[in-house]
Formats: sequence, C-alpha cells, structure tokens
Amino acid sequence: MVCSMASKVRLFVDHPLGQGQTVPLSQGQGHYLFNVMRLPVGAVVSLFNGRDGEWDGVVAQAGKRGALVCEGQTRPLVPPPDLWLMFAPVKKARTDFIVEKAVEMGAARIMPVLTDFTNAERVRGDKMLAHVIEAAEQCGATALPVVDEPVKLGRVLDGWDPTRRLMFCDEAMIGQASALSGDRGPWAILIGPEGGFSDGERDRLRGLPFAHPVSLGPRILRAETAAVAAMTLWQNAFGDWR
Amino acid sequence: MVCSMASKVRLFVDHPLGQGQTVPLSQGQGHYLFNVMRLPVGAVVSLFNGRDGEWDGVVAQAGKRGALVCEGQTRPLVPPPDLWLMFAPVKKARTDFIVEKAVEMGAARIMPVLTDFTNAERVRGDKMLAHVIEAAEQCGATALPVVDEPVKLGRVLDGWDPTRRLMFCDEAMIGQASALSGDRGPWAILIGPEGGFSDGERDRLRGLPFAHPVSLGPRILRAETAAVAAMTLWQNAFGDWR
Repeated sequence: MVCSMASKVRLFVDHPLGQGQTVPLSQGQGHYLFNVMRLPVGAVVSLFNGRDGEWDGVVAQAGKRGALVCEGQTRPLVPPPDLWLMFAPVKKARTDFIVEKAVEMGAARIMPVLTDFTNAERVRGDKMLAHVIEAAEQCGATALPVVDEPVKLGRVLDGWDPTRRLMFCDEAMIGQASALSGDRGPWAILIGPEGGFSDGERDRLRGLPFAHPVSLGPRILRAETAAVAAMTLWQNAFGDWR
Repeated sequence: MVCSMASKVRLFVDHPLGQGQTVPLSQGQGHYLFNVMRLPVGAVVSLFNGRDGEWDGVVAQAGKRGALVCEGQTRPLVPPPDLWLMFAPVKKARTDFIVEKAVEMGAARIMPVLTDFTNAERVRGDKMLAHVIEAAEQCGATALPVVDEPVKLGRVLDGWDPTRRLMFCDEAMIGQASALSGDRGPWAILIGPEGGFSDGERDRLRGLPFAHPVSLGPRILRAETAAVAAMTLWQNAFGDWR
C-alpha cells in the first residue's frame, strides 16, 4: 500500500467492489490504515481488485475489525495491452525489480522462463505476486498482470501461438542496428539471461517466423534495464503510451 | 569489476593506457584478480580509463604488487552522445540504481538536482562515482559520464544554454499523449521527484523555449523506471541506438 504526498492511500483488495459494498481489510491493511496512517472514520482511500475498476472506499469502522464502504467508482477497469514479459530469473533483488517494472510499464502477463544459461535460484510465485500488488498500488494500475510459475523456454516455444509476435533482445546483437518493426496485436518480449542465450537457443529463436530480434543499443544492459527499455519501445510503438 | 561467463574481466584504471604501458593495480583490484579470480601471469583482462579506449592488459606480476602490461587496443574510445540525465535524488538504493542505469543507457553527465519536493537525503559524490565505475565495467562502456554535485533546479535553469533541449517527464501529464519531438544535438532529460514538481517549477518548465514535456504513459513510474524509459525514447530517436 502506498501513499504519496499528493494522493490518497491506494489499496488492492481481493473482494468485490460496487456501490455500497462493505470491504473487510486484512490485518496488515488495518494496521497500515489505522496505526500507521491514523485514518479516522470517514476518511477516503482508493480501492481496486483487478476486476471492478477503482473505487473510493470510506472508513466505516477503524481498528482491528476495520472496514470500508465503497462510495463511487473513480476509474473504470483499464487492462494493460496484450503484452507478455518473459525473462530469465536473475538474482533475487533484480528479479523483484523486473516484476515491479513489468507492472509499472504495463505488461499483462509475467513469465519467468528457464534458459540454458539461467542460474536458477528458486523463484517464489507468492513473493512475485506480493511485488505485483505493491507495484500496482503504487503506479495506479487498475488491473494486475498474471504471474506464471517458471517454465523452460523450450517448452514455451513448443506451444507458441504463432499469431503472437515475439520481440527478443539479445546481447549478441550489440552494435547491430535493428529497430522494432511489426504491428499491433498480441506480443511478448523475451529478455535473455545475463550470460546470453546459448547457441542452440539463439538459432531456434532466429528461425521462428514470429520472432523479431531487436537491439537495445551498443552497451550491455542488465536484465532489468533491458526489460524496461524493451517495454518502452513496445509501448511507445504499439501500446498504451500512444 | 565484473566477469561474465563469456567475457574477460573488465577493469577501470585511472592510469594512462598505451602499447607496452605498465599499469599498477589498486589493492582491491589485485585482490579480485589474484585471490578471487586466481588469474596467473600471462592471463589477459580488459582495461579502460575513460580516455584511451579499451586495451588488453596482460598479467605481468601477480600478488600484492601485481601489475599488468598493455598489449594492444581492443576498442577505441566511444563517448556516449551529448545527453545529460538530471534527476531529483530519491531513497539511497533507488538513487544508486538511477546512476547505474544512466551509465548503461549512455548518459554523458549525471546531475542530481534538488527540487521543491525533493526529500533530500545526502547524496555522496564518491559513492555515485563508485557506482558509475562498476556500471561502466559491467556494460562495456569505454567512457565514464561526469557526475555532478547536487545543485538546485532553479540554479541549473538560471544558467541554461538554450541550445540544449530539455525533455522533462511530469506526472501531471499522465494520460496525455505527447511524443518526443525535436532534433539531434545536445539534450538533457529531467526526471521529477516522486512527489512531482511544484506548481511553480511546472509553470517555469513549461514556459522555457527549450523544454519539451513528454508523457511516459498512463501509469505513475518510479523515478528509476522513468529514467530508463526516457533515455530509451531519446537514444532510440536521437542517440547511439539508431
């Protein structure tokens, strides 16, 4: 849950939202609103659940059994464009960062993929979801991206729907000019691991009819930087930044 | 200093580089090369000093008094384009991140600016420089950006050379479409603080003939995300990604 100077507290709740709806709070949310922020009865916070848009929630009861009541929708549900972000998990802090950035940048689905050179630390789905929620509260999103369990890159490609284009960002392309081309519609972005793709993976990716190799400039970008840069190019060309 | 699976260790040294030149190592560098990486005499590492390009350095002596000898330039000096990144310092970890990203993305100058809503933790120039060096070693840059001491935004604008364009990214523009326009030449990017600009700052910025307000999509981006996204748009339009 996040509060910036200028705006209301914004909370994700896994509960239906609608006019007059009473919304119970988790223990953590109650603690934050009433002990940390010291909100009184009658105070207004922003609520979203990923399905019903954003609502004003008025504090009806404070304290341990605190509850809010929905009073008016402030924004409709606006799902992000149909963009998946696939990335090879890296060290924990940087994986957390990639997940946070995927939400801010507007990915619809977050897919950890295991590549030949992935140094796979365990990826915890529950932790990723917690980061997704925190980032969505912070960035004003009204929808949450889907978060997948890690899966092998080869398996993902085996089952690929060829109508979804795949933008892949490859260290081996450093120094080559190659801009993003293609058209709107469903896309995925694939960020390679820090050791790069294996030769076998690279050959396979380059041979896929739906794959678009893209260069991200002459320097080697860390995975989380590449993720933000690639999503920027895509959102600016085809997504909801237009 | 950074070593990835596929590449040589890469070291920044503050020492002239040229054919046959002997290069002494700092204690930390010697420890890393000979105790951590266990490099023997004759091993080759990559050296750069921000002025003379990138050179192969051969281990001439290992251990405490270890030294390298330059044997051939591997890349010329390639300075980044004339892009400044100005940002309001945020919490320490995120400030470190912005500095790291500025190097990876190819900024020529990194300028912490204090705005009306900057919650100014102390910014330590020596720490910023250490992050710059580490990022340059990692991303393969041959030049280091200049790192300024923090200065007030108003003072920076008072002394502005109007031939340098200023792209500013403002939370207040969320939801408005405004693409990057302009032309090549010197530019600066200004990333606002997480509380946004003050009304006074915003009025002043909007009135500047060299200022280009740019929207970074419909979600609120954290400062470090905005920095990478803005540099991506610029590099892709005017910089060395073309």
